[in-house]
Amino acid sequence: MESRVYLDHAATTPLDGRVRDALVSHLGEPRANPSSLHGLGTAAREVVEEAREAVARLTGASPREILFTGGGTESDALAVLGLARAAVAADPARRHLVVSAVEHSAVRKAAEHLESTGYRVTWLGVDGHGLVDPRELSQALRPETALAAVMWANNEVGTVQPVEELARVCREQEVPFHCDAVQAVGHLPVDVTEVPVSTLAFTGHKFYGPSGVGALYVRDGVELAPVSFGGGQERGLRSGTEDVAGIAALGAAARLAAGEREEWARRERELRDRLVRGATAIPGVELNGHPAERLPNNAHLAVEGVEAESLVLFCDASGYAIGKGSACASAGEPAGGEHKASPVLAAMGQDERRAFSAVRVTVGKDNTPEEIDGFLEAFSGAVAQLRELSPLYAGRG
Amino acid sequence: MESRVYLDHAATTPLDGRVRDALVSHLGEPRANPSSLHGLGTAAREVVEEAREAVARLTGASPREILFTGGGTESDALAVLGLARAAVAADPARRHLVVSAVEHSAVRKAAEHLESTGYRVTWLGVDGHGLVDPRELSQALRPETALAAVMWANNEVGTVQPVEELARVCREQEVPFHCDAVQAVGHLPVDVTEVPVSTLAFTGHKFYGPSGVGALYVRDGVELAPVSFGGGQERGLRSGTEDVAGIAALGAAARLAAGEREEWARRERELRDRLVRGATAIPGVELNGHPAERLPNNAHLAVEGVEAESLVLFCDASGYAIGKGSACASAGEPAGGEHKASPVLAAMGQDERRAFSAVRVTVGKDNTPEEIDGFLEAFSGAVAQLRELSPLYAGRG
Repeated sequence: MESRVYLDHAATTPLDGRVRDALVSHLGEPRANPSSLHGLGTAAREVVEEAREAVARLTGASPREILFTGGGTESDALAVLGLARAAVAADPARRHLVVSAVEHSAVRKAAEHLESTGYRVTWLGVDGHGLVDPRELSQALRPETALAAVMWANNEVGTVQPVEELARVCREQEVPFHCDAVQAVGHLPVDVTEVPVSTLAFTGHKFYGPSGVGALYVRDGVELAPVSFGGGQERGLRSGTEDVAGIAALGAAARLAAGEREEWARRERELRDRLVRGATAIPGVELNGHPAERLPNNAHLAVEGVEAESLVLFCDASGYAIGKGSACASAGEPAGGEHKASPVLAAMGQDERRAFSAVRVTVGKDNTPEEIDGFLEAFSGAVAQLRELSPLYAGRG
Repeated sequence: MESRVYLDHAATTPLDGRVRDALVSHLGEPRANPSSLHGLGTAAREVVEEAREAVARLTGASPREILFTGGGTESDALAVLGLARAAVAADPARRHLVVSAVEHSAVRKAAEHLESTGYRVTWLGVDGHGLVDPRELSQALRPETALAAVMWANNEVGTVQPVEELARVCREQEVPFHCDAVQAVGHLPVDVTEVPVSTLAFTGHKFYGPSGVGALYVRDGVELAPVSFGGGQERGLRSGTEDVAGIAALGAAARLAAGEREEWARRERELRDRLVRGATAIPGVELNGHPAERLPNNAHLAVEGVEAESLVLFCDASGYAIGKGSACASAGEPAGGEHKASPVLAAMGQDERRAFSAVRVTVGKDNTPEEIDGFLEAFSGAVAQLRELSPLYAGRG
């Protein structure tokens, strides 16, 4: 495949070369099962525990509060199902959840599953920028609420929630609060000593780390019921032989992010602002999500008069990889298959036409201003071409 | 760490150099999310689908019958929980399981969880060699049986079950049959066109492939209820962004195994037989499990008058990494913590003293006869030394 400029970092980031080196160095070691009693097993266990310390340090956690999982989706589902089932085991009346309407499918589908098994869910609305109101959260909590879940930052439109306030509201009312921080960790300061979440999900491949390895922070004293079963690894909450090299790579990514996140975010923000300025200078192109409270790398653009899918493909043909809506939302669907508006944009009050015209352009620490300028040229050309082809848009002109 | 001879392949195998090369080559590519619409996403999707074909070919499956998971434990738990919940959704009376008493904890703990939520479980006993009797399975099945589960080959003692007969019994009575083939794939011929399993679990790191990536075969027409939730990847049964490089590595391992398994097994068997001959020549050392129907790489030895843990540590000090019981069974326990006899040896009718004296020595394709001879020397020395220290054994002498 010819080279492409990658502007789809919210779907997955490239693997940082230094993380790759760490991963490869562990692939060269004799491999052992960390549960084995012999010296090689003990050495493998030490690699896992060193990575746990690095991941804990990145988020302000204690190492014992970090569980390794197979990714962000698994972390989210484990937290939501695990908190809900632990609550109901302690008190059968606790079958109520409060979940924001803009959650990633990992949280939303887990909550919908619980809803289908007899839990009641209060879906928290958002304003036009995608923000949850802490007062609404407070009003939604009841004595029988098993958990509340609001993400740190939205994977589609990039809006950053007032998580500190939201978490405090829940702590005051003694309701466990789960936060999906998959898009936030490595891009925003995420510190569980400042934000009193009960559980927090994140994953390596969204901040230049490995794929297939995620983490779940579980605050000391918070109870989760197990969702899967086996040999009892990760405090009985994530059984299965540990992927030692992958976990070591997640540790390496956490160490990098702890040292470099601010610089990454500064670069991402500059590139993103350049991109938004250029794109919104085109008539009929608007930024979705909050103008200020947003991920440093996210530009979510409503482009009047075009179909997002065509725009993504036109940009791709010019050598620029961008996303439509959320990659995860379309998984499992055959290309061009199901055509459903994103629940996130619907919750923000956008109509279907605007929703279907949205593209997500997400920059990374290694993009350059020249790449952004090149993209803007390709983008404006594609928009003009598509609008010319569109009877709908032409009719309005 | 100084170099050690690795004889603990049932816990995890080394990563084959060619699989490592395949994995590393995918780490060097631009990473994309297979759910992304652009060309890089499409290319990532193709890598995943090529690996699926290779894994399907190794097991006689169709690619659409293969799901990628995070490992063998996850595959087992998904099959057991997924089959059970699908059965009960179709017919609320179907709350009965038949499970062998010698299953890996991945299957056993999932069944115990279902038992704790109102399912009844018939635990199938085994004979002194660890074999399940197909007639007993047949008698245990009832109209309300949701699934039966018997592993292909035991992870501790290495006994290979009559899976073809067991699977046929279940098919005749129209009961879904799950088979944990984690120890078998890559070591024994495993072909789902000959053995009518409904689901079959396996994982890369037991046959020289990657850690953290497993697979579940699900026969066409077999229904599984989802256990976790999210973006709908892997037909809605294993949501989460795919670990493309890891999946590619599992495909590479499957291709190797398809071509070389017979040669690997021949070498493993020769080394294992050399080892068993030498070890059982020591008075009071006996082979556990079936003498002939066993994994080619497994020697499970009862060593009269010694504690397995001490023997493992003595061998380790001499440079030989061997296992006690099953690595997975001790996971999560602090070293030297809980002291519980293996359910496998108990089901085979062995008393606690004999169970605690058992070590598992499992060879690999790259071990040499010289390594086995060196091990036998270290082993017999360690046994003699430990027996000398043991008042119990000395008292019997």
